[in-house]
Amino acid sequence: MQEKRKRRRRRRSEQEETTAVPPITQPINVLPLYELATDEQLDILHDASMQILSEVGIAFLDDESQDILRQHGVEVRDDIAYFSPHIIEEYIAKAPAQFTQLARNPERNVIIGGKNICFAPVYGPPYVYDEDYGRREATLEDFKNFVKLAYLTPYMHHSGGTIVEPTDTAVDTRHLDMVFAHIKYSDKPFMGGVMDGTHAADTVAMAEILFGADAIRQNPAVISLININSPRLLDDRMLDALKVYARARQAVIITPFVLSGAMAPVSVAGTVAQMNAEVLAGIAFAQMVNPGTPVVYGSFQSTTNLRSGAPVFGSPESQQALYLTAQLARRYTLPVRSGGMFTASKISDAQGGYESVMSMLPAVMGGINFILHAAGWLEGGLSAGYEKFVLDCELLGMYHKYMQGVDFSDEGLAMDSIRTVKPGGHHLGTAHTMRHFRTAFFDGDLFDSNSAEQWQAEGAQTASQRANKKVKRLLKEYKRPFLDPAKEEALLEFITRRKNEIGTKR
Amino acid sequence: MQEKRKRRRRRRSEQEETTAVPPITQPINVLPLYELATDEQLDILHDASMQILSEVGIAFLDDESQDILRQHGVEVRDDIAYFSPHIIEEYIAKAPAQFTQLARNPERNVIIGGKNICFAPVYGPPYVYDEDYGRREATLEDFKNFVKLAYLTPYMHHSGGTIVEPTDTAVDTRHLDMVFAHIKYSDKPFMGGVMDGTHAADTVAMAEILFGADAIRQNPAVISLININSPRLLDDRMLDALKVYARARQAVIITPFVLSGAMAPVSVAGTVAQMNAEVLAGIAFAQMVNPGTPVVYGSFQSTTNLRSGAPVFGSPESQQALYLTAQLARRYTLPVRSGGMFTASKISDAQGGYESVMSMLPAVMGGINFILHAAGWLEGGLSAGYEKFVLDCELLGMYHKYMQGVDFSDEGLAMDSIRTVKPGGHHLGTAHTMRHFRTAFFDGDLFDSNSAEQWQAEGAQTASQRANKKVKRLLKEYKRPFLDPAKEEALLEFITRRKNEIGTKR
Repeated sequence: MQEKRKRRRRRRSEQEETTAVPPITQPINVLPLYELATDEQLDILHDASMQILSEVGIAFLDDESQDILRQHGVEVRDDIAYFSPHIIEEYIAKAPAQFTQLARNPERNVIIGGKNICFAPVYGPPYVYDEDYGRREATLEDFKNFVKLAYLTPYMHHSGGTIVEPTDTAVDTRHLDMVFAHIKYSDKPFMGGVMDGTHAADTVAMAEILFGADAIRQNPAVISLININSPRLLDDRMLDALKVYARARQAVIITPFVLSGAMAPVSVAGTVAQMNAEVLAGIAFAQMVNPGTPVVYGSFQSTTNLRSGAPVFGSPESQQALYLTAQLARRYTLPVRSGGMFTASKISDAQGGYESVMSMLPAVMGGINFILHAAGWLEGGLSAGYEKFVLDCELLGMYHKYMQGVDFSDEGLAMDSIRTVKPGGHHLGTAHTMRHFRTAFFDGDLFDSNSAEQWQAEGAQTASQRANKKVKRLLKEYKRPFLDPAKEEALLEFITRRKNEIGTKR
Repeated sequence: MQEKRKRRRRRRSEQEETTAVPPITQPINVLPLYELATDEQLDILHDASMQILSEVGIAFLDDESQDILRQHGVEVRDDIAYFSPHIIEEYIAKAPAQFTQLARNPERNVIIGGKNICFAPVYGPPYVYDEDYGRREATLEDFKNFVKLAYLTPYMHHSGGTIVEPTDTAVDTRHLDMVFAHIKYSDKPFMGGVMDGTHAADTVAMAEILFGADAIRQNPAVISLININSPRLLDDRMLDALKVYARARQAVIITPFVLSGAMAPVSVAGTVAQMNAEVLAGIAFAQMVNPGTPVVYGSFQSTTNLRSGAPVFGSPESQQALYLTAQLARRYTLPVRSGGMFTASKISDAQGGYESVMSMLPAVMGGINFILHAAGWLEGGLSAGYEKFVLDCELLGMYHKYMQGVDFSDEGLAMDSIRTVKPGGHHLGTAHTMRHFRTAFFDGDLFDSNSAEQWQAEGAQTASQRANKKVKRLLKEYKRPFLDPAKEEALLEFITRRKNEIGTKR
């Protein structure tokens, strides 16, 4: 009897009947976007990319992919595909300008493309960092924690993918645990496994269980990150994953991964021309596999410290490359992914703050649609910071407010307030202020604006120390959103079966 | 004999015969500027400002100033001046679109206006902060230290003004010590005293000793900060200082100091309309005092935490206001001052980094000509951080590189490098990389891009701790630039005389 009551209480406490966190309004940037290049300069980049595509070529290290390319008129010699400009144009035109990705809570569906902005968490770190234990290998527990933090943050629209590598799980079944954690602990949209074709197929199968096989052919329920091994190479594993997703009409982000000076020229224009060729080849290929497949024009670009070879983040050259990338994607009417809260810092210190905004603000100003790594990134992506995650989210809130634009109406001009207040007076109590003070300014809770005396009295904490407390509070308050128990059971059955199959093969 | 040798050695060591720090190339932003508002939206702001100027009015709390205004057709009733739009237009048209400010080393003259960018240090803090001693009252020694740091930084074009308040000096003669320190420890241009008319007159007298009375009438040798007490009030002390400088044809930055929600409406458009009215009134007045006086359209705007009343920095609303300010100044063809590395943080932590870039990057993107507070600002301007100063300067270096733009030439496209490198290879050793690797990327020394292991091995230092070491190294290596001993003596004589006069009056 007592046992039963306890169980019931436990169930209630760990799963809310309704969604605890209010649905998010995905922002639309109503402000003009920053355009670095003229149309003529974009032409120069485009023409250089066409030259790379047709004369220098892109390696596709997969026989079936080469067959597909040949069937669609692409010349392939010695694993290298040579695309003529008209083939590129013909196939990228088949990709939708924008699309909706399903979330299991339909109020959290996201639109990717157009003027819509979608923020997603950091992706890929094998380590985590927090103020209590420092740097350590990431576990599935960490993975779940970050899914919960992303779920709780009103400024994050997406649950992301490999938020951290759960290194305490088996490599070849890890994708099952990760996708399940996204589904169980969040109701926001998520990303799929990409290690190879079977990971992709498993992700699609789980999405079919959750949404139905028909529904996900209408609108994708999975978006996945297909990296190009720059310079100019797509390997068989990535191509396998790409083919599986495209055939199931799930969205893919085709992303050259570039550190200028290493995987691309040291020059900004050369880097962008090469990346543009690479991503267009990948997108055209996806459209050959299944015309109309939702794709995102991706870009991960940073610069290299040429003395040490280490990646550098927030650099002025990366800012320039980002703006050019965004403009090129718009030229091709494709949704674009780039940016993030990048830093090479190992901790949430001043460097982490400076570099993160130097990378992220240009992504907002440049009109990037899908901003992966929008929170949590540390150490060049090798580590996910708990404190960094919630600090970055504070900035995401500011960007939401920024993108709402400026009210130039009579109410926005506030002439009644200006007329009322006498010289040297103040607007604090005016009718206009009273009408607007609740929404006038973004109001966060991590950046301290108190006096030095009060800050001292409260323990002289760094921003990272305050963030540490917020992380703990959020994880304590977390209640997971309702999930249909029948679907949860079906997913668990699928995972058990697949783990057995993969385990047997092993 | 020994004594003499020691003296000679001391002189050599504390003063270099030639300039130790290479002259700076002041950057020109070759990139397009960010424009938030359409021409129609700028018209709306302009019209609202004209309404404020003509119907609501600006208080000028000084009889002589009111007489000057009346003589130039401005209606003044009960201390409030009502400007008709045609008078504003007539007088602001007399201000130069850009001007050169003299430095005692002519290679360090700066151009203020047009596409030229000038960075100047933090201004006004009564406290300093460093990692060794924390927060304490600023002294003349601190003042000198910051002048030296600004002199040593290749990315700082200006020595600034009240970098910190030297609180260990007498208030009414402090300006003499500050101006002398700028002249003695730096050869970059500087700012003048503004506490009242006598401080301004003393600054002009010192500039005349240094440059000659005729020379400074051709090009200003002093630029000074005239704050407007928003909303809509210029007090007698600021007006006195303004009149002295304008009559001596020295440059003034007319700056409304606004926290939206307190000194201006909570709305961005209302804030900008009010500030625009205020600054135009000040500029028109300066042109009535002496037509052609070099002026800068100034703006200091931030938002208020409406729960505590504390100023908030790097807010999304401030970014929007900054872009509008820059556009309005360009509409009037006036040099513009705004922006800075603002933060409410008490230390150089993550908050300090995030907020600083959130304020500063828009100033660069928006085309602000004179960026005061470009390094060192902490705690809402109450404290100057030693570490913050050199960290901010690292960012200034990045902005220099950013503003150089992108090379879209064949050399920039690097097709030779792209053709040479095979798929999956690298560009590290290509001929193109070898031609450009020295200048391809901004190369700082404070942001750590090393591996976590190496960072650990080097003591796991925060950016602020690394900055602390750099500050000490810079101050140790500092050699002051050559100053004509006759001029130094004349300046010291002037200061001694003035200190006696002021002391007698006291």
